[in-house]
Amino acid sequence: MKLYTYYRSSAAYRVRIALNLKGLEREEAYVHLRRQEQRAPAYLKENPQGLVPTLIDGDVGIGQSLAIIEYLEETHPEPPLLPATPAARARVRQLALLIAADIHPIDNLKVLNYLTREMGVDEADRLKWYRHWVDEGLTALEALLAGNADTGRYCHGDAPGLADVCLVPQMYNAARFEVDMAPYPTLCRINDACLELAAFADAAPDVQPDAE
Amino acid sequence: MKLYTYYRSSAAYRVRIALNLKGLEREEAYVHLRRQEQRAPAYLKENPQGLVPTLIDGDVGIGQSLAIIEYLEETHPEPPLLPATPAARARVRQLALLIAADIHPIDNLKVLNYLTREMGVDEADRLKWYRHWVDEGLTALEALLAGNADTGRYCHGDAPGLADVCLVPQMYNAARFEVDMAPYPTLCRINDACLELAAFADAAPDVQPDAE
Repeated sequence: MKLYTYYRSSAAYRVRIALNLKGLEREEAYVHLRRQEQRAPAYLKENPQGLVPTLIDGDVGIGQSLAIIEYLEETHPEPPLLPATPAARARVRQLALLIAADIHPIDNLKVLNYLTREMGVDEADRLKWYRHWVDEGLTALEALLAGNADTGRYCHGDAPGLADVCLVPQMYNAARFEVDMAPYPTLCRINDACLELAAFADAAPDVQPDAE
Repeated sequence: MKLYTYYRSSAAYRVRIALNLKGLEREEAYVHLRRQEQRAPAYLKENPQGLVPTLIDGDVGIGQSLAIIEYLEETHPEPPLLPATPAARARVRQLALLIAADIHPIDNLKVLNYLTREMGVDEADRLKWYRHWVDEGLTALEALLAGNADTGRYCHGDAPGLADVCLVPQMYNAARFEVDMAPYPTLCRINDACLELAAFADAAPDVQPDAE
């Protein structure tokens, strides 16, 4: 398998964690987002959306981190990143999508750049924007996790899974923007538990070969 | 089953289509987004994120449209909304997530309201914002679908599935904002094919009991 990745991309970070949890080897290719390498014609052939990550597995090419991780789950089911029952799987997917669909897309680099370059938004309002959507999402996530009997050492039970794979990159991203994490004790506890695992620690942006 | 819905919510529209395609009966409860009913304490107990849709199935409550649809797919597999092979399933999920994670969240009502109310963005720039993200996403989607051998009458083959379930509400939404659809002939063709099916037509915003 080959993974197109960028060290600071939250979506690529998710896939790096998932590959590590499943113990899957891959070749990596680095796509420098700030240098706009994702818009190069050769890369757009692999991923017409011009985003990272892209996973190539033989003649299969997949974009969108959650589609990639569901594919890995189906093709390499052990260890599972989703629990066994439909209700539990729905809970984990809801938690993952809350992050991947409702926080991250509004706060990612291309949106922040549009605010600055196309709308003339200053740094203070850009930061306010970022923190508003992170706080809204993390508040809901904390409410869903805290005191829920299904929450364990990780987001669902005592084995790391898809929700944790999404949580840790979002927490890393929020820390970069100096979001106050005091309102999210459950998220912080789970994040810390994940980062004790090599699968998560080895996927962190700062230890990637393309880190700057 | 009980579905909390709002006629104009794209995410609720997706779940209405999926339920119809699978022939599943449900009770509906209406959550009026413009009147902020999604922030009412009673509703936040069902969905701490304060969004629609929410599906209640016995003692299982699920938010996030794609988590709900994957749950329906696992609990009521016929007719399937995902194809059989992991590679084909990944393709369909990628198409669905392109819409559900990369277009819709940036352009939904709460984000547009934030632009107007918190950032003082005028109507012209708000519309420019909307169209920018729709055009970026639909351009990639058209590239992924046009000329791909897996694309059929619908997004994947000749039976409607998860990608179509996401496409049709996005096309409806784009039409409301008068986006020029000429660059997207494949998307238009598939959208038209879907709307010939009662499952899609009966889920349309304008024919819902809570339509205004």
